[in-house]
Amino acid sequence: MTPPTTPPAVHADRIDRLRREMHANAVDLVLLGPSSDLFYLTGFDAHLSERLNLLVVPSTGKPSLIVPVLEGPLVGEARHLVSVHSWADHEDAYDLAARVIGDIAGEHVAVGNQLWSAFLLRIQARVGAATWTEATPLLRELRMIKDDVEIALMTEVSHLTDDAWEAFISGSPISGLSERDALARLTELTAQRGIARIWGICASGPNAASPHHATGERVIAEGDAVIFDWGGSLRGYQSDVTRTVCVGAPSDEFRTVYDVVLRANQATLDAVRPGVPIEQLDRAARKLITEAGYGPAFIHRVGHGLGLDVHEEPYLIEGNDLPLAAGMVFSDEPGIYLDGKFGVRIEDTVLCTPDGGIRLNNATRKLTVLN
Amino acid sequence: MTPPTTPPAVHADRIDRLRREMHANAVDLVLLGPSSDLFYLTGFDAHLSERLNLLVVPSTGKPSLIVPVLEGPLVGEARHLVSVHSWADHEDAYDLAARVIGDIAGEHVAVGNQLWSAFLLRIQARVGAATWTEATPLLRELRMIKDDVEIALMTEVSHLTDDAWEAFISGSPISGLSERDALARLTELTAQRGIARIWGICASGPNAASPHHATGERVIAEGDAVIFDWGGSLRGYQSDVTRTVCVGAPSDEFRTVYDVVLRANQATLDAVRPGVPIEQLDRAARKLITEAGYGPAFIHRVGHGLGLDVHEEPYLIEGNDLPLAAGMVFSDEPGIYLDGKFGVRIEDTVLCTPDGGIRLNNATRKLTVLN
Repeated sequence: MTPPTTPPAVHADRIDRLRREMHANAVDLVLLGPSSDLFYLTGFDAHLSERLNLLVVPSTGKPSLIVPVLEGPLVGEARHLVSVHSWADHEDAYDLAARVIGDIAGEHVAVGNQLWSAFLLRIQARVGAATWTEATPLLRELRMIKDDVEIALMTEVSHLTDDAWEAFISGSPISGLSERDALARLTELTAQRGIARIWGICASGPNAASPHHATGERVIAEGDAVIFDWGGSLRGYQSDVTRTVCVGAPSDEFRTVYDVVLRANQATLDAVRPGVPIEQLDRAARKLITEAGYGPAFIHRVGHGLGLDVHEEPYLIEGNDLPLAAGMVFSDEPGIYLDGKFGVRIEDTVLCTPDGGIRLNNATRKLTVLN
Repeated sequence: MTPPTTPPAVHADRIDRLRREMHANAVDLVLLGPSSDLFYLTGFDAHLSERLNLLVVPSTGKPSLIVPVLEGPLVGEARHLVSVHSWADHEDAYDLAARVIGDIAGEHVAVGNQLWSAFLLRIQARVGAATWTEATPLLRELRMIKDDVEIALMTEVSHLTDDAWEAFISGSPISGLSERDALARLTELTAQRGIARIWGICASGPNAASPHHATGERVIAEGDAVIFDWGGSLRGYQSDVTRTVCVGAPSDEFRTVYDVVLRANQATLDAVRPGVPIEQLDRAARKLITEAGYGPAFIHRVGHGLGLDVHEEPYLIEGNDLPLAAGMVFSDEPGIYLDGKFGVRIEDTVLCTPDGGIRLNNATRKLTVLN
């Protein structure tokens, strides 16, 4: 299947919707650098570097895009949505930005969350005194709810990632490989399926007790639990899957922990329905894990939104009482980490539909023993 | 050769040197997020995400490091240099940051250039009124001059990248491959040599007239000029090489342009010696290209510093009168871009020594014809 493309009219509509959010929140101006926010609004996949790329969205009128001369060709179709202002390396991009932004004394400016502080400080130094806040509260209202094209892409990228996993576990043994080499094998299988910008973690044995372990040279051996947490993107949309395998016969303790994590993953999914406060998903997993006696070993939230970013709103954590809504996509990834021994995490991408949650991942969740 | 490792005492010394820069610039506090600045000072390769990782360096006393609980194991040896303050997902990282930072009313705070604006805005909202500036002017004084270990790593990563190029051009023909597939072959050869975090551009035919072309599905054909600009890192230190090849017999115009760019690359190198204002390097290349009649087609600066970042200070551009110094490492990459036709860029990494510039790259610069 060829994945669908975002039609140009969709970008114009998204900018209109951002304008309505700006109006509702009394925001006069939005500034965005290279980021998923920029790509979402315009389709422009800007290059992140020390050279200023900046989208300026006023409350009325055409948005402006400031772009380095040498990156002008990358703007592509987005040039129909914006006024393009380019600057050469020997020119001062911030003088240009100040002219494009104009007088904003007393106004409310919202800036993209991932905009580098250097860009913000240089712009602030050149324009009038304003109130500066984050743009994410505006953009999350748009980006949290995925449209049909986005859901199709996320379904496709999730299935391709599943398929790489099935090929991986039916391939050669991983015992004797370094974490780095085992991960390289999995990411190669993922790349062969057309997925780009692949990232991943392989954490083996005691390293699996560190959720964000830096994959290294440890050699995988008989008796190890091994966590693989990886993903990549298709036309910008991300997959994010975790599976935990056992190399050789699993211990009784590993079987017990694996079963608890698997049931917590299911309990989270079962709690999904529109209107439910998001923190209830974290509570569902945490209650089950705590009752099984492993509460203190579940050292992170149960999940995060994903879409154009691997981590984005909404975050599935105690204290987030935002109601779930159909079209939200997020990870369901409980884990138990036993320091010095092993860890287990099982992660799927889940879509909230009007009827409840459905998994976009179907790679086997059965306890898998590899050699 | 096994690349050398940065000894722990070096990090303590770098923090001391930052302190001296802070004192000289009347800076009371430095705040750094996940970045090469943080890695350079502490060896901590922090995970960049929406979770707050923050190094707080006061003008006296032990620095503090704020880190998410689940990433605590990644801190490693850096824990001996700092006081570690960790926070769990359900806790407020910014309350913790405010407590660690303390009362800074009236003080001068310098923040890492790549710190996300969301982090800066949240911290600013919780601490007293202060003066906020960029930390790069302090850090560049340390990072611009590479020590012996850094030079050894940059030499090694450059040679490995050269070696991948030599294997690439002596391999199978690239005519008939897509840009994406040709680049994948080159990056695979680079990865096989132990280089990590590889990135790259392949721009063919008229696409080569766009310096930061987004590598795509265009099929490389007889008569194309093809630019490969790629690199990766070894223990954090970057390579960055560009070579332009011709597929099939080069036209007279291509031969002429190639020769001009090659001479501009040499003219830049020849201008390198300690004490020379850095803008002179850009002028050397630009003068030669302008005299050859291609001035308006050289649409970017002649180079940029590199080290832990692919682009870092110093930038080789008109207006930068900082004097060159022994130990600086930067790219030498003139280019000529003929819209709708082709482009040529030839890039080496250059080290400034007491006696002048030496190239760290030795991959052939002769006009290479591939099939």
